[in-house]
Amino acid sequence: MTLNVLFAAISERYDQYFAPLTAAFEKAGLDINLSDKHQPDVVDYIVYAPNSPVQDFTPYTRCKAVLNLWAGVEAVVNNPTLTVPLTRMVDHGLTRGMVEWVAAQTLRHHLNLDLFIHGQSGEWLDHHTAPLAQDRTVCMLGLGELGRVCAETLRDMGFHMRGWARGEKTIPGVTCYHGEDGLKDALSGSDIVILLLPDTPATENILNAQTLSYLNKDAYVINPGRGPLIDDQALIAALDSGQLAHATLDVFRTEPLPTTDPYWAHPKVTVVPHRASETRASTAAEVIAENIRRNEAGEPLLHLVDRTAGY
Amino acid sequence: MTLNVLFAAISERYDQYFAPLTAAFEKAGLDINLSDKHQPDVVDYIVYAPNSPVQDFTPYTRCKAVLNLWAGVEAVVNNPTLTVPLTRMVDHGLTRGMVEWVAAQTLRHHLNLDLFIHGQSGEWLDHHTAPLAQDRTVCMLGLGELGRVCAETLRDMGFHMRGWARGEKTIPGVTCYHGEDGLKDALSGSDIVILLLPDTPATENILNAQTLSYLNKDAYVINPGRGPLIDDQALIAALDSGQLAHATLDVFRTEPLPTTDPYWAHPKVTVVPHRASETRASTAAEVIAENIRRNEAGEPLLHLVDRTAGY
Repeated sequence: MTLNVLFAAISERYDQYFAPLTAAFEKAGLDINLSDKHQPDVVDYIVYAPNSPVQDFTPYTRCKAVLNLWAGVEAVVNNPTLTVPLTRMVDHGLTRGMVEWVAAQTLRHHLNLDLFIHGQSGEWLDHHTAPLAQDRTVCMLGLGELGRVCAETLRDMGFHMRGWARGEKTIPGVTCYHGEDGLKDALSGSDIVILLLPDTPATENILNAQTLSYLNKDAYVINPGRGPLIDDQALIAALDSGQLAHATLDVFRTEPLPTTDPYWAHPKVTVVPHRASETRASTAAEVIAENIRRNEAGEPLLHLVDRTAGY
Repeated sequence: MTLNVLFAAISERYDQYFAPLTAAFEKAGLDINLSDKHQPDVVDYIVYAPNSPVQDFTPYTRCKAVLNLWAGVEAVVNNPTLTVPLTRMVDHGLTRGMVEWVAAQTLRHHLNLDLFIHGQSGEWLDHHTAPLAQDRTVCMLGLGELGRVCAETLRDMGFHMRGWARGEKTIPGVTCYHGEDGLKDALSGSDIVILLLPDTPATENILNAQTLSYLNKDAYVINPGRGPLIDDQALIAALDSGQLAHATLDVFRTEPLPTTDPYWAHPKVTVVPHRASETRASTAAEVIAENIRRNEAGEPLLHLVDRTAGY
């Protein structure tokens, strides 16, 4: 039986995903009619991006699941018209890209590469021994798939590694904290903090004046997670007071970040235009195909969103 | 029996090393009289830096071995007055520092971090997907202790990893080439080349107009090894022609690099003032003590220099 799969995202994405999805469906042995123009009442599955025009799921009466193309689901998880299972994207390409970006930014700040990238005036700077990674404490906020793999990679690079998540987690070689009480312990004495938490009411402004004060002086903040995790005014105040050495931010409450935003001009902030990592069509298509195959075979969906927790 | 150990290096180093060496000797159970002022004819061992005033070893008639504080021995290996065994420094701290620096610079170029470090004008740059490490071929020239560990780390980070050395080497997950014939194969199709070779007559100008032409267009050169490994004029020509995207250089034929050197002003060159990594006193002192203990016990010295090969 042919399954009708609606591709609901901006049109450029359809061009990008049509061939990889078709190939992945065939490889998974699925008979699929893929289109971005199916009538709602014939649709079996929706491959979805939250910036799609589809915001009302009510007419999709036959739909069995919504398969999100993004890792983040905050823009769809509370949609009251969505009553079928929702899955997040956990894409190998996205994970590897994130690991590489997080390792690059962490090492950049650890070794103060900017000093040399900017320091090409002809002055041979005084020689002093840089600390080793084993002398730096790095705290990963968020230990989902992305946070966990990044923490493991930084641990393997030699950093003294901590992690924090809402619920209890165990990662060999990473000191894990959890819950509200654990957050202070996780941040206290950390030199570099990395945010890879989902955007939920419980995580909003998790880095604020109080929690930033727990970090070591001259600490670094790296945010490839979500913009609302940071209280922006508190971050700028901590940079200006000297509590923080630098912040590298890939995500913002408003994107593109307005040209007038104080982050752009701040000498201790690197604005990255949401480039840390993204879903790769070739690998993501295989995840979508596998989830449709599973659901049709009565097997549990991968990366199912817990609608109560919000991720 | 008390052994007389001469510390022969610039005087700042003695201040830095006296306490760590004393502690390491005690820990190794050695009875040592450490001084930077022993008369030559009483000296049993020389802890040595090639920029020391000691350049004539002839008066050190009782000396059993010269223990170099540096990884590089090119400034001492051909000293005709040196007739006793010479050891190189292989220091855990130096190795880890080098791994971190090489990983940082490789990831920096791989992800073009400079674009964002410099790009803070308020323009939200067009979004395009960066390649993954697995889509980049990195070639390590030199597979000694430093080159091998760096190659393994970059392999673990996901890069498609190649290595080259004068003699045959085997590293799991790294495609190894050797000899003059292997050099062309190692460089052909590489996107990033890293130099961690010793400075010997055979390696001088190993990166020259011809060998640079084997690399992929827009390749990156990273040199934390030795200045003479690169034909400087050929490197600048390759940067200017567009064959190379960027060169990050930590070492030079003349250090400090003169303010008038064209590398400083070149927009595609990052000059780093010999900061990639250096010997750490605490860990290096343990290597020195272990080698004295070994020699006194009749065990083979660690990191013995092959005077014919020059390293």
